[in-house]
Amino acid sequence: MTSADPDDTGLLAPGWAGSPAAHATGDTAWLQALLDAEAALIRAQAALDLAPAEAASAVTEAADAGRFDVRSLAERARSGGNPVIPLVADLTKAVGDAYGPHVHRGATSQDIMDTATMLVAVRTLDLVLGDLERTQRALARLAAEHRDTVMPGRTLTQHAVPTTFGLKAAGWRSLVLDARDRVIEVHDDLPAQLGGAAGTLAAFTAYGTRNTAALTAAFARELGLAAPLLPWHTLRTPIADLAGCLAFTAGALGKIATDVLVLGRTEIAEVAEGTGGGSSAMPHKANPVRSTLIAAAARRAPQLAATLYGALAAEDERPAGAWHAEWEPLRDLLRLVGGAARDAVELTEGLRVRPEAMREHLDLTQGLVVSERLSAELAPLLGRARAKSLLTDLARRTCTEGRSLGELLAEEPELKDVDLDELTDPARYTGAAGSLTDRALERR
Amino acid sequence: MTSADPDDTGLLAPGWAGSPAAHATGDTAWLQALLDAEAALIRAQAALDLAPAEAASAVTEAADAGRFDVRSLAERARSGGNPVIPLVADLTKAVGDAYGPHVHRGATSQDIMDTATMLVAVRTLDLVLGDLERTQRALARLAAEHRDTVMPGRTLTQHAVPTTFGLKAAGWRSLVLDARDRVIEVHDDLPAQLGGAAGTLAAFTAYGTRNTAALTAAFARELGLAAPLLPWHTLRTPIADLAGCLAFTAGALGKIATDVLVLGRTEIAEVAEGTGGGSSAMPHKANPVRSTLIAAAARRAPQLAATLYGALAAEDERPAGAWHAEWEPLRDLLRLVGGAARDAVELTEGLRVRPEAMREHLDLTQGLVVSERLSAELAPLLGRARAKSLLTDLARRTCTEGRSLGELLAEEPELKDVDLDELTDPARYTGAAGSLTDRALERR
Amino acid sequence: MTSADPDDTGLLAPGWAGSPAAHATGDTAWLQALLDAEAALIRAQAALDLAPAEAASAVTEAADAGRFDVRSLAERARSGGNPVIPLVADLTKAVGDAYGPHVHRGATSQDIMDTATMLVAVRTLDLVLGDLERTQRALARLAAEHRDTVMPGRTLTQHAVPTTFGLKAAGWRSLVLDARDRVIEVHDDLPAQLGGAAGTLAAFTAYGTRNTAALTAAFARELGLAAPLLPWHTLRTPIADLAGCLAFTAGALGKIATDVLVLGRTEIAEVAEGTGGGSSAMPHKANPVRSTLIAAAARRAPQLAATLYGALAAEDERPAGAWHAEWEPLRDLLRLVGGAARDAVELTEGLRVRPEAMREHLDLTQGLVVSERLSAELAPLLGRARAKSLLTDLARRTCTEGRSLGELLAEEPELKDVDLDELTDPARYTGAAGSLTDRALERR
Amino acid sequence: MTSADPDDTGLLAPGWAGSPAAHATGDTAWLQALLDAEAALIRAQAALDLAPAEAASAVTEAADAGRFDVRSLAERARSGGNPVIPLVADLTKAVGDAYGPHVHRGATSQDIMDTATMLVAVRTLDLVLGDLERTQRALARLAAEHRDTVMPGRTLTQHAVPTTFGLKAAGWRSLVLDARDRVIEVHDDLPAQLGGAAGTLAAFTAYGTRNTAALTAAFARELGLAAPLLPWHTLRTPIADLAGCLAFTAGALGKIATDVLVLGRTEIAEVAEGTGGGSSAMPHKANPVRSTLIAAAARRAPQLAATLYGALAAEDERPAGAWHAEWEPLRDLLRLVGGAARDAVELTEGLRVRPEAMREHLDLTQGLVVSERLSAELAPLLGRARAKSLLTDLARRTCTEGRSLGELLAEEPELKDVDLDELTDPARYTGAAGSLTDRALERR
Repeated sequence: MTSADPDDTGLLAPGWAGSPAAHATGDTAWLQALLDAEAALIRAQAALDLAPAEAASAVTEAADAGRFDVRSLAERARSGGNPVIPLVADLTKAVGDAYGPHVHRGATSQDIMDTATMLVAVRTLDLVLGDLERTQRALARLAAEHRDTVMPGRTLTQHAVPTTFGLKAAGWRSLVLDARDRVIEVHDDLPAQLGGAAGTLAAFTAYGTRNTAALTAAFARELGLAAPLLPWHTLRTPIADLAGCLAFTAGALGKIATDVLVLGRTEIAEVAEGTGGGSSAMPHKANPVRSTLIAAAARRAPQLAATLYGALAAEDERPAGAWHAEWEPLRDLLRLVGGAARDAVELTEGLRVRPEAMREHLDLTQGLVVSERLSAELAPLLGRARAKSLLTDLARRTCTEGRSLGELLAEEPELKDVDLDELTDPARYTGAAGSLTDRALERR
Repeated sequence: MTSADPDDTGLLAPGWAGSPAAHATGDTAWLQALLDAEAALIRAQAALDLAPAEAASAVTEAADAGRFDVRSLAERARSGGNPVIPLVADLTKAVGDAYGPHVHRGATSQDIMDTATMLVAVRTLDLVLGDLERTQRALARLAAEHRDTVMPGRTLTQHAVPTTFGLKAAGWRSLVLDARDRVIEVHDDLPAQLGGAAGTLAAFTAYGTRNTAALTAAFARELGLAAPLLPWHTLRTPIADLAGCLAFTAGALGKIATDVLVLGRTEIAEVAEGTGGGSSAMPHKANPVRSTLIAAAARRAPQLAATLYGALAAEDERPAGAWHAEWEPLRDLLRLVGGAARDAVELTEGLRVRPEAMREHLDLTQGLVVSERLSAELAPLLGRARAKSLLTDLARRTCTEGRSLGELLAEEPELKDVDLDELTDPARYTGAAGSLTDRALERR
Repeated sequence: MTSADPDDTGLLAPGWAGSPAAHATGDTAWLQALLDAEAALIRAQAALDLAPAEAASAVTEAADAGRFDVRSLAERARSGGNPVIPLVADLTKAVGDAYGPHVHRGATSQDIMDTATMLVAVRTLDLVLGDLERTQRALARLAAEHRDTVMPGRTLTQHAVPTTFGLKAAGWRSLVLDARDRVIEVHDDLPAQLGGAAGTLAAFTAYGTRNTAALTAAFARELGLAAPLLPWHTLRTPIADLAGCLAFTAGALGKIATDVLVLGRTEIAEVAEGTGGGSSAMPHKANPVRSTLIAAAARRAPQLAATLYGALAAEDERPAGAWHAEWEPLRDLLRLVGGAARDAVELTEGLRVRPEAMREHLDLTQGLVVSERLSAELAPLLGRARAKSLLTDLARRTCTEGRSLGELLAEEPELKDVDLDELTDPARYTGAAGSLTDRALERR
Repeated sequence: MTSADPDDTGLLAPGWAGSPAAHATGDTAWLQALLDAEAALIRAQAALDLAPAEAASAVTEAADAGRFDVRSLAERARSGGNPVIPLVADLTKAVGDAYGPHVHRGATSQDIMDTATMLVAVRTLDLVLGDLERTQRALARLAAEHRDTVMPGRTLTQHAVPTTFGLKAAGWRSLVLDARDRVIEVHDDLPAQLGGAAGTLAAFTAYGTRNTAALTAAFARELGLAAPLLPWHTLRTPIADLAGCLAFTAGALGKIATDVLVLGRTEIAEVAEGTGGGSSAMPHKANPVRSTLIAAAARRAPQLAATLYGALAAEDERPAGAWHAEWEPLRDLLRLVGGAARDAVELTEGLRVRPEAMREHLDLTQGLVVSERLSAELAPLLGRARAKSLLTDLARRTCTEGRSLGELLAEEPELKDVDLDELTDPARYTGAAGSLTDRALERR
C-alpha cells in the first residue's frame, strides 16, 4: 500500500460521496476552518491593538489548508487527543520566528476546535438550506398540480378512505418547511468559542486584553458567527441544537422517502423515481435509489443525535471524553443530511406520478373505500340500526360475491332515490383535502 | 396475586415515583386526557351546530376517568392496537342511547390519542417549567453569592487554571435558561389533532361540517392547544420537537448533576447535597442521591428521543408501528424530565458550597495552576526563551523537591523586582470570570 | 383522584398489556423477586450455620409481596435512590424483633436489586423461550407446506427474480432459532449477585463467614441462578448480554412483522393475519395489528439496549447513575420482547397465505422477472452480444407494447428450437429455494 | 483544493487515526476485500468446473485494490446505491475480453458487499483480539502485584469500605476476558454471503451449478469464512452479533477508562497514565488522553450498535435502506473498538499505581471507612442497640471534633479489651478481596 491508501473517500457512503456537503465536511475543510479560526483570532487581536497588524497578516496568509499535511496532523493528534495541538505547532512554524509567537495566543485547543466546528456547520447548513428550498418548491409544484388527484389513503398498510396526492405532497412540503425553519433558527445562532484554558479568558487578560467581551465579539464578527454570552466549553447548547435540527431534517426527508418507497412498489407503482438505479443482472429493474439512500440516512441520524445529546452531561471545564465523542457524529450528521437533501432535490424534482394507477387502486376494495361515508349518510335515511346492518351485510357480500358495493347498493329498493353515483364515487369523498392543500401552500 | 398486582407504581423509578410529573403522566391522567379530547370534540361540534348541546353536556359529564376501568381498557386495546377503540365503546355506552351515537363522530382513534398526548405533554411541561424556574433562581443566587469564590478549573480531570464557583453556577443557570426557552417554544405550539380516518376530515364533512378549519380551531380552543395547519398523523413535528426539548433539558440538568457528583467526591468535597441519601450499613455515608437520579435520567433521555426522531419516517396516512412506538418513550421522557426537574430544585436550593475546600485545592499543584499566567507575564521581562526554560525547570523542581512554585521563583535573582505574590496568587488569575458571571446574570 | 390512580396498567402498551410477561415484570413481581433474594440469602447463611434456621424460616415466610405496600416502597425509594433500603426496613419489621436483625445481614442494596433483576429476567425469558418455540414450530409448518409456493422475490421494493414462500418462512424461522439460541445462552449464565458494600464481601466475613465462595454458591443455588466468579456491581456483563439477546430477538421478530406488513398491503395481499384488528368507522378494514405491535417493539428495543450497553462504563465500586439507568430500560426490553413473542405466536400460527396471489404477481413484470435467467441461458445459444441486445430490445417492447416477454420471444425465429415455456416460467426459476428450505428445516 | 482534498484521514478521530484498525477498515481495505470476494467466487467456480481455471487466475491477478480508483468508485456508487456495481464494471474491463464475462457470474452486489464486510470484520477483530490479549496480560500483572494494595472502595462517589487495587484490576481483566470470549465466538462464525439476486442462488443454477451448497462452501473456504446455512441478505444475525460484541468491548474498555479518569483526578492521583498528553499553555498538565479517547469510544458505540440492531427488521429479499444503513456504522464500530483496544494496551501496560496515595485516602473519613465492620463486630460485645448508638454518636463526633474514630473508640472504657488496632485498620477489612483476586486470575 502507498501512504495514501487508507484515506476514506466515501466508498461506503453513496448517500453523500462526492456531494457538496462531503466537500464542506471533509478533513481538508475542517482543517481550513481550524486555520480560519486561528487567523480570525489574531486579526481580532490586531484590531484591538493586542497583536501587530503584520502578525495578523502573516498568520492569515499562512492559514491555507493546502500547505499543511492533514494526515500527519491526524496522526499527531493522538498524543494530546485533539488536532489543534499539532496544528498550532505547524502554523507557528509556518508563520516564522517573527510572528509565530503570536499564533493562538491566549487560546485553548477547544476554542479553535469548537469555532471550526461551527464554521463547518454553518457552511454545510447553507448547502442544506439551498437544497431544502429546491425540494419545497418541487413539492409545491406537485401539490398544486395534483390538488385533485385522488388516491387511496392508507392506514396500517390497508386502504382506509380516499385522499389526494396533492394533500400528500403538501404534507411532505410542510415537513420540509418545518425542517428549514428549525435549521435556520439554529444556523443563525451558532456561536464562536473563546474562553481560554478553563473558560475564564484569563490568558487573554494576562496578554493584555482589557475587554474580553470586545475581543470575543471581534473574533465572532471576523467569522460571521454569533458572539456567545459565555464560553460554552461545557455548555453544549449549540451542539445539541445542531443534533436536533439535523435529526429532524433527516426524519422529515425520511418520511418522503418512506412514502415513495411504498408507492413505488411493483404492485402499487403510483409513483416512480425519475431515474431509477439499474441492476446489471436484471435489465428491467429500476430501483428507487434516491429514496433508499435518504431512508438509510433517516435510520442513522437519530442515534447520532442521541450521542450528541448524551454529551451535554459533560463534567468540569472540559470533559474527558464527552467532547471528543462529539466530533465524528456531528460530522456524520452534517454529511448524511447534506447528502439526503441533495437526493431529496433529485427525488422530488424528478418524481413521476401516475394518477391513473391511483384511480384504479381506489376500486381494489370493491367500493368499501367509501364505506365510512355510507355509514354517515345512510343513517339519517334508513335509521342508524338499519343502515349499519345493511352495510355490514353488503360488505360481506362484496368479498364473497366479488361484486362491487355500488352494484349491490343499486339493488336495494330502499335506496332507489339516492344518488349512488355520488355517494360511492371515491373521487367525491376527499373531504377537505383540497382546501387543506390550498392552505398549506400559502405557507412560505 | 390479586388482580391489582401487576400495576406499576414506580418501584424501579426513584427518579420520578410519587412526583407531580408521575401523576400528570400516569395511565389515569392519560385516560382523562383521552376523555377530555372526546368531550372537547363534541363541544366544538355543538358550538358549530353539528351536534346537540345536550349531547355535548352528556359527553362532558360522562368523560370522567374515575368511571372507567383503565386496566380493562389497557387489555382490550390489544385487539385493535390502541386504547381509543375500547374507550369509545365504553364512553358511548356511558353516555347512553340518546346521545351515545354522537360520541367520536367523524374522528379517528389517532385524533383522540394524539390530542390526549399533547394535553398530557402541556400539563407536564407546565410542571417542568415551574421547576426550571425555581432551579434557575437558586442558581442565580449561588452565582451571585459565589461571584468571587475561587476554585480550580479542571480540564480532562486535571487542574488547569483557576475559575470561580460563581461562573460555574452561572453556566449551569444558562443551560437551565436554554432548556426553559426551548421548552416554552415547543409548549406553546403543541397542536390538537383532527383529521379523520386518513387526514382529509372527510367523515366530518359527511356528517355535515362545512368549514373543517373552523371545527379544528374550535376543538383546539376548547383544549387550549394550537390549531394545526394540517392534520399531522404522519407529519410528526410536534413529537420530534418534544423529543428535542426534553432530551435537551435532561442533558442540561445532567450537566449540573455531573459536576456535583465530581465536586462532591470524598477527596474533593467542594460541594455537598443538602440532604444526602443514607446507607443502612455505613452510617457515615451521605450519598449524592439527587444528582445520581438526575444523571440516570440524562443517560436515558437521548436514546428515548432517538426512538421518537426515528418515528418521523412514518409511511402512509397512518403507519404500522412508528406511531405505536412513540407512546411509551414520550411518556418516559416526560416523566424522567419531570422527575429530574423536581430533583434539580432540591439539588440547587439545598446545595452546600465549601469555598475553603476550593481554596485549599488551588494549592494542590504547588502553584502550577497559575503557570499559564507566568508564561504570559514573564516572557516580556526575561525574553520568551529564558522565561520558558525557567518555568519548565521550576515546574520539574516543584515535583521533585516538593516545594511550591512561588518559593522557587522567589529564589531567582532575575525576578527580585517582580510582585510574585500577585503573579502566583490563584485568586488573582480568574480572568473575566467575574464580569462573565455578571453578564450571564443579566439574562432573564 | 383516589390514591390508586396513577398506577400504570399498560394503557399505552397494547404490545404487552395483560401478557404473561407483563405479570412477570410488574412492580409486584419485582418486589417478590427482591423478597426472594432476601429469603435466599438468609437460607444460604443458615445452611452454612451463619444464621439460625428459625430466622431463615421467619424471613422466608415474611417474604411475600402481598404483605408489602409497593406504592409506599416506590415513594420511599426516592430518599436513598433504590427500593431495597425501605424494603429492608419493612421486611425487618415484618420478621419481628427476634430474627429481624438477621435480615439482609452483610448484604448491600445492590446485591438484592441485581439478584432480583436476574430472577425477573430468568422468569421472563422462560416465557419468551416458550413463545419462540411455538413460533418456530408454526414457521416450520409454513415452510414445509409452502416449500414450492412460488412468489416474487423483491429487492429495493421491486420484483427481482422468483423465490418461494417456503424459503421466506424458513428464513424467518432461522432468525427465531438464532434468537432462541442467544436467549438460552444468556439465560443459563445469569448470575446471582453477592458482594457487600464494595464488592469484597467484607461484611459477610465480619459476620463470621469464612468461605465467601461457598456462601455465594449456596445463595445462587437457592435461586437457581449461576454463581458469579466475582461480584459484578460494576462488571455489567450480564446486563449487556441481556441487552444484546433481547435486542436481537426484537429485531428477529421485527423482520417477520416487517415482511407481513409488506405482503399484506391491500395491493399485494399475499398474506393476511389470522384475525385483523377492526376499525369502528371502516367496517371493511382488517388491520395487521399483531405485526404492527411487533414492529413497534422492534423500533424501540435497539435504543433501550444502547442505554444498557452505555451503562457498562460505570465508575468505582458502584456508579452514581449508570446502575440506576439500567432498571427501567431492562424491564422495558423484557416486556417488549415478551409481548412481541406472544404476538409472534398468534401471527405465525394464524397467518393466512394466498399462493394464487403470489402466482399472479409473478406476471406483473410481463415476464421480466425471469430476465436474469434468459440472460444466462440465451448467451450460449445466440452469443453473448446478440443475447444481450435482443433482451434489451424485448424488455423495452414489453413496456411499450404491453405484451409479455414470452410472447415476444416466441416471435423470434432464432429461438424456435428453444423450450420457451420452460425458460420463461417463473415457477421453474427458483434456483436452490427448495433445497435451502429443506436444509434449513433440518436445524432443530 | 486539489482533487485529493476531501479525503478523510482521521483528523477528527485521534482515537483511531493511524492505527492498524484504521488501515484494516479504510476504503482501500474495503475495496481489496470486495476484490478478494470476487476472486474467491470465480476460484470456487473454477474448482467446481463452472469457470475456466484461466479465468480464475486472471481475475485473481486483476483483483488488486492498487489498480482501481477508489474515489471514482465511491462517486459512481451513487447511481445504483452501492459500490459493487461500478466495481464489477471496472474489474470486468481490467480482466479483459476473454475472461471478463466470467466476473461476478451469478452473484448479486450484496453477495460481494456482505462477504467483503465479513472479511474486513474478521481482519479487524484479529487486531482487536491481539490487543485484548495484551491488555488482559497487563491487567493480570497489575492484579497480582497489587493483590494486597488497599484502597478506598467508592460507591455513589463516596468512600464506602476498603477494597484492593488488585481486585479492581482483576475485575477490569474479567471484563476484558468477557469481551475476548464474545469477540472470538462471533469472529469464528462470520459467514460468507452467496445468494444471487433474491437469495435463491438461481442464477448460479442457470449458469450450470448443480450443487449450490458445494459452491457456497467452496467460496467460504477460499476466504476462511464460515459457510452459511442460508443466504442472509435479510437475515442479519452476523451484523447484529458484531454489533453486540463490539458494543460490549467498547463498554468493557470504557469501564477501565472511566475508573482511571476518576482515580487519576488531581485530588485523587492514585493512578496515572504512563504518558499523559501535554498542554501547550500549561506545562504541568499531564492529561489522561488514552482513557479519554477510550471513554469517547464507549460513549459512541452503543448508539452505533443500536442502528445495526435496528437494521434487523429488513423487508423483502433486500431492503431499501436498512442494508445501506449498516455499512458506515459497522465500520465506525470496528474502528472505534480497534482504536480503543490499541489505547487500552498502552493504558494498562503503562499505568502507574500509587499505593501510598491509596493508603492515605483511607484516612479521609476519619476511620469511618470501617464503620460497617464496627457495626458488625461490636454488636455481639455491647449488644446491638448500644453498639449502634455508640457508633452513631462517635461518627458524629469525628466530624464535629475532627478526631479519628480510632481515637474516640480508644476512650470508651467498654472497649478496653478490644483490639482496636485490628478493628479499625482499613487494611484488615478487605474481606475476600484477596481470594477473589486469586480466583479471578485463574481464569484464562
